[in-house]
Amino acid sequence: MDPESDTTATAPAGKVPQLPLPHQLDHQWGLWGWELLQKLRSRAPLVQCITNFVSMDLMANVLLAAGACPAMIWSLREISDFTPGVGALCINVGTLSEDGLSSMRAAAAVAAEAAGRPWVLDPAAVSASDFRMEGCIGLLELRPAVIRGNASEILALASARRIKNSKGADSTHKSSDAFEAAKSLSQSSGAIVAVSGAVDFITDGRIVVAVQNGVAMLQKITATGCAVTALIAAFIAIEQSNILEATACALSIFGVAAELGMEKATGPASLRMHLIDSLHGLNEHLLVPKMCIMRVY
Amino acid sequence: MDPESDTTATAPAGKVPQLPLPHQLDHQWGLWGWELLQKLRSRAPLVQCITNFVSMDLMANVLLAAGACPAMIWSLREISDFTPGVGALCINVGTLSEDGLSSMRAAAAVAAEAAGRPWVLDPAAVSASDFRMEGCIGLLELRPAVIRGNASEILALASARRIKNSKGADSTHKSSDAFEAAKSLSQSSGAIVAVSGAVDFITDGRIVVAVQNGVAMLQKITATGCAVTALIAAFIAIEQSNILEATACALSIFGVAAELGMEKATGPASLRMHLIDSLHGLNEHLLVPKMCIMRVY
Amino acid sequence: MDPESDTTATAPAGKVPQLPLPHQLDHQWGLWGWELLQKLRSRAPLVQCITNFVSMDLMANVLLAAGACPAMIWSLREISDFTPGVGALCINVGTLSEDGLSSMRAAAAVAAEAAGRPWVLDPAAVSASDFRMEGCIGLLELRPAVIRGNASEILALASARRIKNSKGADSTHKSSDAFEAAKSLSQSSGAIVAVSGAVDFITDGRIVVAVQNGVAMLQKITATGCAVTALIAAFIAIEQSNILEATACALSIFGVAAELGMEKATGPASLRMHLIDSLHGLNEHLLVPKMCIMRVY
Repeated sequence: MDPESDTTATAPAGKVPQLPLPHQLDHQWGLWGWELLQKLRSRAPLVQCITNFVSMDLMANVLLAAGACPAMIWSLREISDFTPGVGALCINVGTLSEDGLSSMRAAAAVAAEAAGRPWVLDPAAVSASDFRMEGCIGLLELRPAVIRGNASEILALASARRIKNSKGADSTHKSSDAFEAAKSLSQSSGAIVAVSGAVDFITDGRIVVAVQNGVAMLQKITATGCAVTALIAAFIAIEQSNILEATACALSIFGVAAELGMEKATGPASLRMHLIDSLHGLNEHLLVPKMCIMRVY
Repeated sequence: MDPESDTTATAPAGKVPQLPLPHQLDHQWGLWGWELLQKLRSRAPLVQCITNFVSMDLMANVLLAAGACPAMIWSLREISDFTPGVGALCINVGTLSEDGLSSMRAAAAVAAEAAGRPWVLDPAAVSASDFRMEGCIGLLELRPAVIRGNASEILALASARRIKNSKGADSTHKSSDAFEAAKSLSQSSGAIVAVSGAVDFITDGRIVVAVQNGVAMLQKITATGCAVTALIAAFIAIEQSNILEATACALSIFGVAAELGMEKATGPASLRMHLIDSLHGLNEHLLVPKMCIMRVY
Repeated sequence: MDPESDTTATAPAGKVPQLPLPHQLDHQWGLWGWELLQKLRSRAPLVQCITNFVSMDLMANVLLAAGACPAMIWSLREISDFTPGVGALCINVGTLSEDGLSSMRAAAAVAAEAAGRPWVLDPAAVSASDFRMEGCIGLLELRPAVIRGNASEILALASARRIKNSKGADSTHKSSDAFEAAKSLSQSSGAIVAVSGAVDFITDGRIVVAVQNGVAMLQKITATGCAVTALIAAFIAIEQSNILEATACALSIFGVAAELGMEKATGPASLRMHLIDSLHGLNEHLLVPKMCIMRVY
């Protein structure tokens, strides 16, 4: 993709819009995102999630609300039969165990190598232990298509060093702090890297795209980060040739659903409910003008 | 039960109404269902659920809202002490593992043989793998009182063959497609078989009863199928001599709660909330006229 | 703390109020509780929960709403790296397994001995099996700072004998039935013991404090007991020198959030949502006059 290309021309429907010049907002993104969401709803890709026990309910309900088809199947005994048929795979190490890690490795290997399916890594709380850090580094070798984490997680994973005084799955850094780390992690892993925060940054190691959707109260709901990673998996299942763009759209659309939900919410639990309802009810009119994606570097 | 018997007579309170003739709706069912729900609330049967990690929260909350007493105890180390004291057992293979399957086998054996308690099998996503299919077939030998699945699951289990291109726990068939498969599975297993869908079908291998309650949006909420299976377990715990009828009532009552919830819902997450609130608040006036159960064959 | 001391004097802000005389309500408690909640929000202590699979979502969301930072990390492989850095540890045996118990033992040992962090034991459904009873008795030796259970659980644990005909995690006794058992368990274990019920009792083996907040419908929501145990862990993480008082405040504040939530609820599922929203939105004006803590013995 040529970052210097003209972004003023109207992108034909269905074609990926050119990434706009830095700091220019391109409304074509909204249209393309809406098209992608419609495709997701009509194709209903099967997304396998090998994830932590806290997030399963929210993750499955977010995938269903978006139009995808979740499956939380995780046993090592089922990977070789089941994983080749999925549209994408989402791996989250939040409540990692030895058995879980074995399944993750097997599923990622089947997805990436045997079946040619994209998979997404969520290095949740990667600084929690050496076991977890080493587990994530081992998973990087199985070539995830996307890695999504908060700034603390991306900083730690990029340097392969645990950050002391980490707060579990919560970030102690701003997403912009992890800007360079994300680029370097993308270059070394070959994955698109997404750093979540007040502003989300997505990079292929060369260019950086920013998504400015969402609300601060998402941090007060457990597993919203996990859920958006699963949504990224659903989006790249149907758009394997534009992974960076599909990742940005997933983050933006989840954020727009949160913004719409926030209009009705009176706290984190009602936000969680209204977010899912809003995601399910999104239409072109509600979505397109709110999607805020731009190239920043 | 004699299907030819007169259904025009008023059933005495507390007695199972005769199954109505095909295609005739019998309002006695509503009254009997309401009585069963009252019995459930006053007896609060203990229902052990060995189930997948996604469904535990919803399943427990649905059981509590209906008036039952849930227990998600599953370790093999606890079966011999705990399971003999339960009112019924619910087994769901959604996130099956080797350890989980061992516990399921042990608990089903204790329930069915040693303790004489009924148990219900939910063959969730049975087509996902050979491991899962074989696990379910092994569980059938332990004589479940009821098997509840969607059409794809019942079709696969009845033929003991995996259906390719399955979508995890979602059905790719209509419930009526599994009509004959359900009868044949009932005959071979000795269990009442319930096929969930837009219309639910329940059979003892000879007659077929249809339940026409519920709303389409239930498919957009994870684990609603699992939850209704647990509700069936609660109902048969207090009505062991009329398993088919109690199963139909559980499906109908859950469906009515969904219909009432849908009146207030703005999407799947608020439906989930209002369904549980409605189930908890059901009274005779709300429930009886909405229950739609009829014999179709 | 001298129970005979004058309670009519105004406690200086930030100082623990003297425990009021029996049956006298001391409004200083409300002010002290509000200060503690503010401290919790500003310090955001990291609370590790090794808990059952049913409760993880509610527990994490309650901790977040209160201002704490939850982590559900549980693998034995991560304890030595992660647990020394937590503010407090919460252990709940609801869906106990052998692996889980090993992790609990290791984490409790690290917390209590190596790291000097307080930990809380929730002996959920301790009567379910000998395995569970023995597991809990073993954990008592690792010196929990607080034990919280319902009356049936405290009665069983205090006598180290299983209560037959137990109903899983539900109590078949009133909290006042466990009055003496709680004192005796506190004396033998060295822990503060809290008995939940319509009235909660908290004892250090000598004096008994009662908390009269909360609503009956909490019993119709799964894992509310587990969640309040986690909240106790968060409160004692920031108030290690006044464990009894911090425990009473956690129970009271959770109960006030339930009372506020109940004003908007139409059933157990909406209560769950409004409780979390209310906990997040608590301010001095809403909280202080509602906190009802008094010494009863």
